[in-house]
Amino acid sequence: MGGEKPGPLNGLWIMRPDDANVAGNVHGGTILKMIEEAGVIISTRHCNSQNGERCVAVLARVERTDFLSPMCIGEVAHVSAEITYTSKHSVEVQVHVMSENILTGTKKLTNKATLWYVPLSLKNVDKVLEVPPVVYSRQEQQEEGRRRYEAQKLERMETKWRNGDIVQPGLNPEPNTVSYSQSSLIHLVGPSDCTLHGFVHGGVTMKLMDEVAGIVAARHCKTNIVTASVDAINFHDKIRKGYVITISGRMTFTSNKSMEIEVLVDADPVVDNTQPRYRAASAFFTYVSLSQEGRSLPVPQLVPETEDEKKRFEEGKGRYLQMKAKRQGQVDPQP
Amino acid sequence: MGGEKPGPLNGLWIMRPDDANVAGNVHGGTILKMIEEAGVIISTRHCNSQNGERCVAVLARVERTDFLSPMCIGEVAHVSAEITYTSKHSVEVQVHVMSENILTGTKKLTNKATLWYVPLSLKNVDKVLEVPPVVYSRQEQQEEGRRRYEAQKLERMETKWRNGDIVQPGLNPEPNTVSYSQSSLIHLVGPSDCTLHGFVHGGVTMKLMDEVAGIVAARHCKTNIVTASVDAINFHDKIRKGYVITISGRMTFTSNKSMEIEVLVDADPVVDNTQPRYRAASAFFTYVSLSQEGRSLPVPQLVPETEDEKKRFEEGKGRYLQMKAKRQGQVDPQP
Amino acid sequence: MGGEKPGPLNGLWIMRPDDANVAGNVHGGTILKMIEEAGVIISTRHCNSQNGERCVAVLARVERTDFLSPMCIGEVAHVSAEITYTSKHSVEVQVHVMSENILTGTKKLTNKATLWYVPLSLKNVDKVLEVPPVVYSRQEQQEEGRRRYEAQKLERMETKWRNGDIVQPGLNPEPNTVSYSQSSLIHLVGPSDCTLHGFVHGGVTMKLMDEVAGIVAARHCKTNIVTASVDAINFHDKIRKGYVITISGRMTFTSNKSMEIEVLVDADPVVDNTQPRYRAASAFFTYVSLSQEGRSLPVPQLVPETEDEKKRFEEGKGRYLQMKAKRQGQVDPQP
Repeated sequence: MGGEKPGPLNGLWIMRPDDANVAGNVHGGTILKMIEEAGVIISTRHCNSQNGERCVAVLARVERTDFLSPMCIGEVAHVSAEITYTSKHSVEVQVHVMSENILTGTKKLTNKATLWYVPLSLKNVDKVLEVPPVVYSRQEQQEEGRRRYEAQKLERMETKWRNGDIVQPGLNPEPNTVSYSQSSLIHLVGPSDCTLHGFVHGGVTMKLMDEVAGIVAARHCKTNIVTASVDAINFHDKIRKGYVITISGRMTFTSNKSMEIEVLVDADPVVDNTQPRYRAASAFFTYVSLSQEGRSLPVPQLVPETEDEKKRFEEGKGRYLQMKAKRQGQVDPQP
Repeated sequence: MGGEKPGPLNGLWIMRPDDANVAGNVHGGTILKMIEEAGVIISTRHCNSQNGERCVAVLARVERTDFLSPMCIGEVAHVSAEITYTSKHSVEVQVHVMSENILTGTKKLTNKATLWYVPLSLKNVDKVLEVPPVVYSRQEQQEEGRRRYEAQKLERMETKWRNGDIVQPGLNPEPNTVSYSQSSLIHLVGPSDCTLHGFVHGGVTMKLMDEVAGIVAARHCKTNIVTASVDAINFHDKIRKGYVITISGRMTFTSNKSMEIEVLVDADPVVDNTQPRYRAASAFFTYVSLSQEGRSLPVPQLVPETEDEKKRFEEGKGRYLQMKAKRQGQVDPQP
Repeated sequence: MGGEKPGPLNGLWIMRPDDANVAGNVHGGTILKMIEEAGVIISTRHCNSQNGERCVAVLARVERTDFLSPMCIGEVAHVSAEITYTSKHSVEVQVHVMSENILTGTKKLTNKATLWYVPLSLKNVDKVLEVPPVVYSRQEQQEEGRRRYEAQKLERMETKWRNGDIVQPGLNPEPNTVSYSQSSLIHLVGPSDCTLHGFVHGGVTMKLMDEVAGIVAARHCKTNIVTASVDAINFHDKIRKGYVITISGRMTFTSNKSMEIEVLVDADPVVDNTQPRYRAASAFFTYVSLSQEGRSLPVPQLVPETEDEKKRFEEGKGRYLQMKAKRQGQVDPQP
């Protein structure tokens, strides 16, 4: 059969103490991981809905994601996912996350996210299979989806070459400089990070990226901090079990009340030295600083020192102003 | 408002390598944990559905549960829960678990379970609150529920007194003896404990050794305790995935402010009975006792009873004095 | 190429609630685990730095380690590792751990550790490979390293024979007796086992109960085993964070193709010695033995020895026959 639009997927997760920072706010990375898990299930299910070669859906890209309201430990996260577009070789999934306080019954929308998956053959993991088409309830849906598909394809190509450089440690840096808060984390990819076929779950990588970004932000402003948004993340190549990944974060820009942190993920095959270390993913995370009462605080201004840091600061400012303009456009549309 | 029958709850979980045995079958315990998590959510939500004192639902009983068909790693577990009866102070929840192979689409019923919860006040956790009544769609439902309630109540009362005896009674040792604090832990080596090649990471073994030493120290001095040092540890032979390791700890020596605990690690191949159980590692851990303010406290003196215990106490004293001399030598070197 | 001294490795880890005891001090075992992970990465990378057979570095020994100052949850651990000596078949790694309070910026040295690794071939894990030599910046470094190498080698040989005895030897029970497969597990209740209010989730307790029952079953029949059913479980009293629970399992009955295991859960408040140890829960688990192909196998018959064991065997038989009759009644009900 196949070809018909598959039903949506609904899951729920209870937030544990380990999912949150000291203030009880659930890490953005935990939420990204849940979102990705829902995305893998619905897209793998869809790609196997027709008879034919069996496959697993692998995360290729996450679109820019905003964290609309904080989630706390003890709350239940409701995650719903739906396939919204298919191209010949990729699936677009839209995911909504609601937080529910089961004591008061209050529910809030915390995230909307869009993810792209690619089906890889289980027999030959370098072979991309074809995706069964979905049936759209309205004609425009297909047209709009195609436009989103083309836009992300273009952006993917661009970012692939952008991320050349590496975070370098500094010597006794001054507070508020880039070097002062710069951090990196190494992680040996173990079996429980991986799919059955030995690739790291995209959600695991994103959780580590958010963790590093959070450390950079906390070092910079020395307060309780939370993820406000994550830029689009592209996954350029699979990361396999046994690889060592280095996740590096550096602050690029500060506005009055927000910090932008660039996070780079490099994968090192370690035992296989025929394959060089490669850039696996990168993204910009935006964090805000919160008071004890949960109000957003001004952040110390970043002091860029080198030419590169100054250039990245200006680029960050550009992204910030663009996003601000976009958001004001949404809130207050011109008649 | 309240009083009406709340909707069912549906959740899903993806089964990870760590949830399963070496043959890929998900542990019954993992399934029981998921079932209980769904039960807590729906019953806590129901018990807080009316205005009034906030509460948390605590598990009081699980009815007999059959595992109808095995679940495998990579499959998705669908858990649905429904409140089927309420008494004045308890909630009955029925949970169904289905396994779904997302590659083939096959779904199977794996479990039906019935759980009983009791709402405890968040202000005073020894106070049981009243449960808002559910509305039944058919009259018989209430009557059948009441019968199940009475039956389990009777059985609960009976079992409370039945379980008098204890495995390995241990002859009620006196405080401060070696037998009193002696502890051992068994651990089934799972995938996330291991390298890619199926050997336990040395770090995992050391973490378990420290855990046992900490329990011995806490049992002995009944205060907050921390690791002060660890003796050299030798790893004599590899431990493989699926083995059962027994980590045993016994106190060997106490000085004024420190305790020495010997920890032995024995590995048992279990399913491979051509290979005998062997000693995989051993070490001495030194712990100190801390007050609430983090100051080090005197520890109760160990009372060695047998000849072996006395001999080990003297050996421990030797190591203690030697280390003390060495440390004083470092701090205050002779010219 | 190879032969040159590889760069050091620097990583960081954030300390989670589960990494610490109730007072917020990170367990020594968690720190040892981090240290070992850094050691594995740097030594595996070094041993694969030349073309040749691929290998994994396996921990052989950790030198005596002092915990110089406590680390707390919320702090960031900085782990740096360096290869300081290589012999023909082993690598010495020195690791430093600093704790950083990211809010105040305070850093403290918490540990210095020395670890020895041995490279095992990935093709044949019983074969030790050769280690590429490091280049020393000063001549004396090699000489000092060689001295450390010889000293540890000597000590290793000695300890291999020292560790003869076993805690609670248990008198070498015969196969198929109750004592032979009897097992118990201790578990220190951590934050992630608990609700927000500090009680253990019922599901966590059930998962541990199933784990012990599974170990008893595997020890008895030495095959792959799965849970077939669980008897009603009653939870008599709450278990709190920081308590130590002992989960004991013993086989009570075997039919042709099933094993019944009784599991008892005892809770010990440890640091609160006003409250005695109490029975928190108990249940009977039924397990079956499976062949490689998933077919159910006959199980070795249990040999009860003491009067109590014989009595429990008869009670188990009663439960078995009752359940069998009930099930046949369901399948083929009489008119």
